[in-house]
Amino acid sequence: MNYDPLPEFRRCPATGRWVIFAPERARRPITLAHTEPHHRDRVNPGTVCPFCEGNEKLAADEVYSVRPDGSAKDSPGWELRVVPNKFPALRSNMASTLPALDPFFEIRPGIGNHEVVIPCRHHEPNPAKLTLDQYAALLVAYRERMLALASGRLWKYAQVFQNVGAEAGASLAHLHAQIIALPMVPDAIQSEMAFAEHVHDQRGNCVYCEMVAKELAGGSRIVRETERFVAFCPFAPRFSYEFWVMPKSHSAHYEFTGAAALRELAGLFLELLPALDAVLAEPAYNIFLHTSPLTPLGQKPAPMPHYHWHWELIPRTARAAGFEWGSGCFLNAVPPEKAAYELRQQLPALHGQ
Amino acid sequence: MNYDPLPEFRRCPATGRWVIFAPERARRPITLAHTEPHHRDRVNPGTVCPFCEGNEKLAADEVYSVRPDGSAKDSPGWELRVVPNKFPALRSNMASTLPALDPFFEIRPGIGNHEVVIPCRHHEPNPAKLTLDQYAALLVAYRERMLALASGRLWKYAQVFQNVGAEAGASLAHLHAQIIALPMVPDAIQSEMAFAEHVHDQRGNCVYCEMVAKELAGGSRIVRETERFVAFCPFAPRFSYEFWVMPKSHSAHYEFTGAAALRELAGLFLELLPALDAVLAEPAYNIFLHTSPLTPLGQKPAPMPHYHWHWELIPRTARAAGFEWGSGCFLNAVPPEKAAYELRQQLPALHGQ
Repeated sequence: MNYDPLPEFRRCPATGRWVIFAPERARRPITLAHTEPHHRDRVNPGTVCPFCEGNEKLAADEVYSVRPDGSAKDSPGWELRVVPNKFPALRSNMASTLPALDPFFEIRPGIGNHEVVIPCRHHEPNPAKLTLDQYAALLVAYRERMLALASGRLWKYAQVFQNVGAEAGASLAHLHAQIIALPMVPDAIQSEMAFAEHVHDQRGNCVYCEMVAKELAGGSRIVRETERFVAFCPFAPRFSYEFWVMPKSHSAHYEFTGAAALRELAGLFLELLPALDAVLAEPAYNIFLHTSPLTPLGQKPAPMPHYHWHWELIPRTARAAGFEWGSGCFLNAVPPEKAAYELRQQLPALHGQ
Repeated sequence: MNYDPLPEFRRCPATGRWVIFAPERARRPITLAHTEPHHRDRVNPGTVCPFCEGNEKLAADEVYSVRPDGSAKDSPGWELRVVPNKFPALRSNMASTLPALDPFFEIRPGIGNHEVVIPCRHHEPNPAKLTLDQYAALLVAYRERMLALASGRLWKYAQVFQNVGAEAGASLAHLHAQIIALPMVPDAIQSEMAFAEHVHDQRGNCVYCEMVAKELAGGSRIVRETERFVAFCPFAPRFSYEFWVMPKSHSAHYEFTGAAALRELAGLFLELLPALDAVLAEPAYNIFLHTSPLTPLGQKPAPMPHYHWHWELIPRTARAAGFEWGSGCFLNAVPPEKAAYELRQQLPALHGQ
């Protein structure tokens, strides 16, 4: 049988969920040893890392880099590189020609843009081991790529995420993040924005601003606070030791955050991640950004008084099973107050406390 | 620090999601070796199976059983047993006394009923190895327990599910299913029913009846059809080789299905599961039931012209990662037409074809 190898979006007629069919993903190399899911740096023997300095030719040509030494594109000497994913979930250059279909089965061309952000030239699998300069450059790279992706006007949303460890879905050990730009705002963001807008209509407030105020007032779920940011275990997390990081003042668009704030945020992550590694013995985890849809080039950002960008980090220590997938309701064995307490114990002491 | 060990429901103020805090789950025994996630029958050494015949005293007292030999309760001789989960996600006998809290952080007592259904007395980890009598008794046990749970009027929904393999969240190898009765209809069911009701308002049809008709007419995603049921890979599945099984005629309440139909359904599963084992080399998977809320004893079942019970089976061959958890949009490398074709190839030939 012959199946179209082009990626596509499909919408489930019974649930309304969008799914991406990405046949090329099945061909990507898996060098992380999946039989040892909790080992983040165990790699299958005989594989070469395409993200290490000196192996630039194994990856696609860079679209962004940090090269303080002025070295040439796609050569050694970089501090951070962004390259197109060689096994992309979606394609950016696909003609929109699809056969007419039964409208019951909604289908759209699988266009999108899938990039990999490599924040260190050495074979480091652990984000907690980045330097402050490296982590700050990573957070800036997300911003720069979101602004660049918005300029094409094709993309409505950029999903930034990082998979750490095979159990969290990473296929290569060398630390990397990914950005998938989409022609539509994905379901989870639409539903989160709709819920927040509903709250705003009812109470006139951003629910995330309310949450920051209440968490800071209560304190039991706070992990760490800096001048501009706060990290806390949310009141009803789906996963044990899950935490969120967000600006304390209202801010809807991550990509308009300034360099000083991003450096402060990088420093916060570099306190949080070693604490998480200490509490859970270097767990696998996912980090992802929730932010407003992209702003087309030349337009002013939408005001978005109801939405508030934030990072979510979910450790993958327990597996969602039949109950969770069936009911959508998550079972969590660790109260966030306990998780926050344990994480706080692993943080370096603050000056003056 | 002292944390309340009682289970509770909490609602996320930012997303509206309900989560269950189940501290007792952290104490349940894990005998399946999680370092070998794809081996369904590899157990940690030195453990005794509480579900094997002769070990009845290691599990809680049975609330339902099939004992053709008339043997005594909680003794050997059974064909199927249902016992309360010794490490329940929720408690059925908890006083509803919670401190008054900020209404921003919604909290409810963690009441519910968590049972385990053991469909064979021998240490069999693979549902595909059940006999037709055993599988039919399992499907009948779900029905009987749903009817019994409805009679207490406390429970609004019963989530039936089965985790096969450690990668799918199973902690004990001996084949077992679980039923969690809830005091509320869970988020995934509410949202599925709301979507189906919206379709019904617009087109006057049950969207599942429409889907059955269109899938049967098209044929490319059908895996197997029997007199009353059809199994197919849905148009937009989240997981590779995911399939759904549902009655061809409209039916909203699983627990009012007759014995002959359930026996036919059991026979269908016993064709599907070996085919899945053949295509994916005995994968880990979850099976769960989606059906209408429970009908209180003495009341007529709600008509529910828009909803339609069905089983979903999700193989756990790929892991949901940062993109999926962040965006809610799933990446799937295998088109359902290809999955259905491969599954069909592994089915026994039908008479007359």
